[in-house]
Formats: sequence, C-alpha cells, structure tokens
Amino acid sequence: MSIEPQNTPVSEIDLERLPLDIARIHELAESLLPVYSQIEENLPLPDEAMNQALVELIELMHELHPADVATVLESLPQKERMLVWHLAAPEEDGEVLLEVSDAVRETLIETMDKEELLAAVEDLDADELAELADDLPNQVVYEALKTRDEEERAQVQAAMSYEDDQVGALMDFELVSIRADVTCEVVLRYLRRFESLPDHTDKIFVVDDHDVLQGVLPIRKLLVADPEELVENVMATEVVRFRPEDDVEEAAQAFERYDLITAPVVDENKKLIGRITIDEMVDVIREETEADMLNMAGLQEEEDLFAPVLDSVRNRWMWLAINLCTAFVASRVIGAFEGSISKIVALAALMPIVAGIGGNSGNQTITMIVRAMAMGQLSGMRAGRLLRKEVGVALVNGLIWGSVMGVVAWLLYDSPGIGFVMVSAMTLNLLLAATVGVLIPVLMDKFGRDPALGSSVLITAVTDSGGFLIFLGLATIFLL
Amino acid sequence: MSIEPQNTPVSEIDLERLPLDIARIHELAESLLPVYSQIEENLPLPDEAMNQALVELIELMHELHPADVATVLESLPQKERMLVWHLAAPEEDGEVLLEVSDAVRETLIETMDKEELLAAVEDLDADELAELADDLPNQVVYEALKTRDEEERAQVQAAMSYEDDQVGALMDFELVSIRADVTCEVVLRYLRRFESLPDHTDKIFVVDDHDVLQGVLPIRKLLVADPEELVENVMATEVVRFRPEDDVEEAAQAFERYDLITAPVVDENKKLIGRITIDEMVDVIREETEADMLNMAGLQEEEDLFAPVLDSVRNRWMWLAINLCTAFVASRVIGAFEGSISKIVALAALMPIVAGIGGNSGNQTITMIVRAMAMGQLSGMRAGRLLRKEVGVALVNGLIWGSVMGVVAWLLYDSPGIGFVMVSAMTLNLLLAATVGVLIPVLMDKFGRDPALGSSVLITAVTDSGGFLIFLGLATIFLL
Repeated sequence: MSIEPQNTPVSEIDLERLPLDIARIHELAESLLPVYSQIEENLPLPDEAMNQALVELIELMHELHPADVATVLESLPQKERMLVWHLAAPEEDGEVLLEVSDAVRETLIETMDKEELLAAVEDLDADELAELADDLPNQVVYEALKTRDEEERAQVQAAMSYEDDQVGALMDFELVSIRADVTCEVVLRYLRRFESLPDHTDKIFVVDDHDVLQGVLPIRKLLVADPEELVENVMATEVVRFRPEDDVEEAAQAFERYDLITAPVVDENKKLIGRITIDEMVDVIREETEADMLNMAGLQEEEDLFAPVLDSVRNRWMWLAINLCTAFVASRVIGAFEGSISKIVALAALMPIVAGIGGNSGNQTITMIVRAMAMGQLSGMRAGRLLRKEVGVALVNGLIWGSVMGVVAWLLYDSPGIGFVMVSAMTLNLLLAATVGVLIPVLMDKFGRDPALGSSVLITAVTDSGGFLIFLGLATIFLL
Repeated sequence: MSIEPQNTPVSEIDLERLPLDIARIHELAESLLPVYSQIEENLPLPDEAMNQALVELIELMHELHPADVATVLESLPQKERMLVWHLAAPEEDGEVLLEVSDAVRETLIETMDKEELLAAVEDLDADELAELADDLPNQVVYEALKTRDEEERAQVQAAMSYEDDQVGALMDFELVSIRADVTCEVVLRYLRRFESLPDHTDKIFVVDDHDVLQGVLPIRKLLVADPEELVENVMATEVVRFRPEDDVEEAAQAFERYDLITAPVVDENKKLIGRITIDEMVDVIREETEADMLNMAGLQEEEDLFAPVLDSVRNRWMWLAINLCTAFVASRVIGAFEGSISKIVALAALMPIVAGIGGNSGNQTITMIVRAMAMGQLSGMRAGRLLRKEVGVALVNGLIWGSVMGVVAWLLYDSPGIGFVMVSAMTLNLLLAATVGVLIPVLMDKFGRDPALGSSVLITAVTDSGGFLIFLGLATIFLL
C-alpha cells in the first residue's frame, strides 16, 4: 500500500503503517512504564518528555481499528499491555475484548472493575455479549442482562447454551426478513426504513407467517429485478442453511466451498432463528488450521506470548510428559541391547540416524493425511490404496538413503556388515513409518478422535522405539 | 444438516449427504474400472448391472456442485479419477479445474485434448482464464485468447504478469463503478439495467472521469439512503484498497482484520483496475496456514494424495536429505564419545531421552513464535523479552522433568552420579532449545526468509547434537 498524496479525497487504512505504529507503541509504552502508577491515577507526570510520550501514545491508540488494538495488546508484555489497555479508547473496549485471543482476554478483564466492564459490554449485540459471557464475572453478566429487553436476554441465553464448536454459539440475531408475496418495490421501500442494515447483508431471508424459512432473496438479484416482480419469483429456494447444533468447522467448509457471505440458521421446525456470517467463518478456518499445527507440535491451546512462566508450563507439560514416557520406552529398548553396544560401540553412534529418518518420513506422511482429512478428501476412501502408495515411497526412499548411509557407515567403520545392517534397518524403519503414518490418523478418525491431536508425538514414539529395535536387533543377529 | 420433509419449498444443499455421495462414487468408479475403455469410447457395456452403475455415477456427478466434484476427484486414485472426470458435466469442467489443487489439476489437464480444454475455458472470466493459463498448453491459451475481445485479452495478460503471491494475480475485473455527483435513485436505476451483478457485490466503486477511485458506496448504505441524496454524501472515503503488487497474505490479513467482502485494486495513479473478493482471500488463508504446517513437517508443497510414487519421492527428498545430514552430525558427536560409552554403556540408553525432550520443547517454542509472526504480533517487538520468558519456562521444566528422570536413572543404574548428570543435561538442553527456538524464527524473519520453512528440522538438529554433546560431555567429566 502506498502513501497518499494530499490532493485526493480518499483516506486510507494504511497496512504498511501498522507495523511501524506497533513498534512505536512498544517504545512509548516501555518509556512510560516507570510512571505507570501516576498514569493510572491521572496524576501529573514528572517531566515534559513523558507528557509528550503519553499524548502520542493515546493518539496512536485512538487512531487504531479495534482489530489492530487487539494485535498491539497481544504483542505487548503484560505490564506494558496493562498500561496501553488503560489508555485505549473506552468506547471500543468491548470490540477489542471480542478481537483478542482467549488467553489475552482473561488478562485484560482481570484489570477492569465492574463499572468498566459494564460500560465495555453496553453496546455489544446479544451474540457478542454471549461470546464474552464465559470470561466475565457472573455479577457483570447478570447486570448487563438486566439492561436488555426480554428478546435480547433470550438470545444471549440461547447463544450461551451451545458449545463453542457449534453453529449456535456463533450465530447472530440481526436479521432482515420479508414475506414471499410482496413485490421487490415494497422490499426496497421497507429496507429504506432501516437506519442501517446488519453487517455483511448480502441476502434477505424470506419467511412465512410462522417464521418458517421459504428461501432467500440475494441483494444482487433484488437490485436488478423488475420492481413489480414478486419476491417469490426472484428468491432462491436452494439454500445452504444450518442448524444451531451443526459443527462450526463443517459450516466453515460449506462457506468456503459454496462461496457464502451469510447463511440462515433454522431450528428443528425450519423456523428462522439467526444467521452466521463469513467473518466468523474466516476466524474458524484460521483457528482450525492453527489448532492442527499447535496440536501436532504438542501445545494444548493458543498461548499468550507473554503468559506468566507457570501458565506456559501448564499449557505444555502434558506433551512433554508423554514425550518423556515414550523416550523412556525407547531408552529401555536400547537398554535391552546394552550387551551388543558394549561389544560394538559404533552402534550407539549410528542408531539415532535410523530413528531420526523414520520420524521425519513418518511426519511427512501423517501431515499429508491429516491435511487431506481436514479437507474432507478422505471420506469414503479405503486406506488400503493410500497405504500401498506410501509403502512404495518408503521403499524407494529406504533403498536410496539407506544405501547412502550404508556406504558411509561401511567406510567410516571399515565394516561391510555395519553397512548392510544400516541399509536394512533404515528401509525397514521407513516402511514402519509409512504404515503407522497411514494407520494412526485413519484409526483416530474411525474412533471419532481428532487425527491431528498428538499424532506427531505418537509417530515419533513408534519410529524411535521401532528404529532402535530394528537396528540393534539386526546388528545383534548379523554382527555378533 | 437435516433431511427435508416434502412439504416445504426450500430445497437444500445437504452437507451430510456429501460424504455418503463421495463414498458411493468411489464404489461405483471401482466397479466400472474394468470397462474403462468401453466407457471412454462410448461402446455398450457387457451387462445391465454395469449400465446401471454407469447411469448412477453420471447422475451423482451431475448433481454435485463444482467444488464438490473437485473434492471427489482429489480423493480418487488416478485411474478412477480419470474415469470419473470423463463422466463429469462438461459445462462445469472449467469451474472444476479452478477448484482442484495444482497437483491434481495437472493430472486432469493431461487427459484432455485441445477441443475439450477450449470448451472448458470458454465461459471463464478473464481472471479465471489467467489463473489456469500456467497449466494449459500454450496453443490452448493462444486460441482461447483469440475468441476474447481486446479488453479481456489485456486483462488476462495483466493478471498473468503478476506472481502467484501478488494481489494482481487474484484480482478480478468485474466492476460496477459510478460517479460521485449522481443521486442514489440514479444509481438504483443504473443497477437495474444490469442483467446480473458480479458475485459478492457488497459495494460499488465511486470514480472520477479518469477512473481514479474517489470512494466506495456500500450497498447496505445505498439501500437505506434517501433516494435524492448524492452519492458523494453517502459514500465512504476511508477505503482499504490494494495495489496489484501487494502481497496476498497481507491482503488476506487485512480482509480478516477489517471484515471485508470486496476491496478495490488501484494502480500507481489511483486508477481503479480491479477488485479482490473474500472467497479468494479465504483460499489464501487456508493455503497459508497449511503451507506453514506442511513446511514445518518437511513437505515442499501440497501433494496429490495419489501422486505416482516417484513424484512423492521428489516432493519429499530434500528434507529427508537435510535430516540425514543433521542426523549424521549428531552421530559424529556420539562417535566422539565412543570411549565414554564403551566404559558406561548406560549412557547409550539414556542419551536419546535428553535429545528427545529438547526437540519436543524446542518445537513447542518455535511453533508458538512462527504462529505469532504469521499473525503480525511480533512486529516491533524485541526478542529479548520473549527469550527471557522462554528460558524461564525451560528452567522450570528442566528442573521438574530432569529431576524425575534423574531419580529414575539413579534407581535404574544404582548410580547417583548418572542421576545428577541426567538432571543437569536435561535442564541445559531445554535451555538450549528455548534459546534456539526463539532465535531461529527471529533471525529468519530478520533476513527476510519464511520462519516456518524447515524450522522444525533445524531446531531438532540443534537439540539432538546439542543434547548428545551436553549429556556425554558431562558424563565424561563427572563419571569417568
């Protein structure tokens, strides 16, 4: 994005400026940290430079879009984060809380008192309030609900009754609905009575007297339709729609597949109860692929970059513990061959190569399959075909790379026997990696578990213990 | 999604049926494979059952949305894929080619002759033709361009002149633009003259006589505006807009941040030349996060699930080779301590534990940082803060898990010395993992490289060699 000359009326949200702004905010926040308590209590600052820094920081924060304020807060260490949060525009507090990650949201809410929180959620829609409710103190939720009317209270409670991974938790209630037996002209006049239309309105929902969904009228069609035409002749009746119990990841894939902007949510009687929008689905897609990545690396959930050390330890301990257990098993496998190693100490140096290439190759296979599953490409496929192909790849790789390392080991230790054991062990471990790399995600999926979860740790466990066993076993048989 | 009772007029794209359809298509395709050549040459099939299977398969394929046809094709082994592709509705061929992954697209195009390809691309827009052009034979592109008018030819060539990761390659040219000095009533009448509006039209671009962008008129505002009001009083002048040279990932992040549906693309003189839409950006977000995941696992690019074995070998060999080199280095580190191992053979069994936990912990750190970088959270941040936190986490984990394994090793080998070396080595290797886990992505980013690329292989290399060196070194000093 380019910098704007002065003579054009178009102002611009400048994406190139954002990283510079963030860097500047970091600097200012750090320089103001010594006078944090004065700022918090609105006391005068000791010198003019500090005052200028404070003014600049406040101005920068007020210029930012709430989504950018959220990014700034996520990127700041905790103390600076509190300082900057204190200076952000209070009327945007609610929006910012919606945008930040769960981990950071908690740290922000902790610093706010009841009045600040009530003010922050005052202007939020029912679905947004429901999204925050889990993280807010009960008293705040209770008082926030008191100020809403009956209908909104019911909406908040409905949205809160669904799990985070259900469409119901993400739907909003800002709907424009019409009857099928009116003309497009009437619809246009009706719309003009609104002060503003809901965000992302790309279609109007057509319902009968009992709010049962009849179809949708895309705005694109409404705009080009003959004003005298009836809605029922213009509307689309082939509608992708969702139930509040539907899985959000499946909904997001439907949005992606069918290029949707909004879609209706209906209850079991086809009654229209809400809608979901592409912006929520984009977040789902981002979170879904990231969760796969974090899970494969052994992180339980998205972590605040500057979480206190003990929070981080808690987020990571489980996979480390599992890793230690599997490493211990591998260690016992080696322990069983201590006799062989004490006779040929070269085995100790060569065995990590066999284990390592198996782990690497197995991770390639498993990542490819987890990805294909996430995209719905593996439904209905029999794993046999895939297994045959992966075994083929492993065989070729094993013979090529096994031979390379076999020759190296032979020359290094001047022993053709060691070279032969190396080729065989590497090929066998790659075959094991391919087999397990296909079976782990296929079986996890069959038993209804998330195939990404810990699959990397599992395959490494198998290829480590298996690699040591194969290599040391072959060596014991053929070299001793 | 639920099954439709008969009495409602709304038909439904049923997401629950899709996996079942795909499974059925797999079965049918497999059963028809023996008569592939008869089907290809439109010869009668040997028996009635086969005929019925063929009819069912064709019907199923013709009912599917092009995006779903693409998923079906990606999920089929190559021979079945060719059979099914041959039976798909030819009028949707172009759309399907746009939807499939690059790897699968190549296999489909290979089976089509010039006439089929020309028919497939005939109805595509200029930007879509440009997207396929790289994969089409030159002769087909040439002839397809001949049938287009001057303006479209220029558009195709413009789109083809940008790199895949530039906004220009993804923009489309279907624009509705108006002048600022007309009334909303005039705009509505103007729109009614269109047969249909471009997909995803959520705003109309306001330009001056030289096509210079003045602002945008959101449809949401147009619909509620007073018809007598001038466009210039209703339009938004704070516009997120892009240059064709902009990076698509940055554009996608802007779409995500600012909840955009479409955005204008302008040239260096602010002249409006195209627009980008949310559906393309959703694909970018999906591909970006997946590329990070594939890269971290050591796969160069998205792979056709049923790629021939040698293609897969080619896609994966580089990381395997790098992994072998790093494993060889680790092996030589161990080799340097063969003397120590031959004296205390328990060292050989314990050393993979030290290396393994370092690799696991380092991958946790690096994944978290790569993710934060992808979200723009690390711009302007000094790595020092983050490093201090990660070192803290490593110290806690090292002392806890090191002590656990230290006690286990002590009991197992009845040697407090081995226990002590274990605690120290695990703690030191975790500290190494934390330091390198922060430094690798920060340095890669500083030198303009993609921090996801191979970071997992790199950190494992360091924690393996480092872990062996620390553990065997300490053992040599304190136990011999």
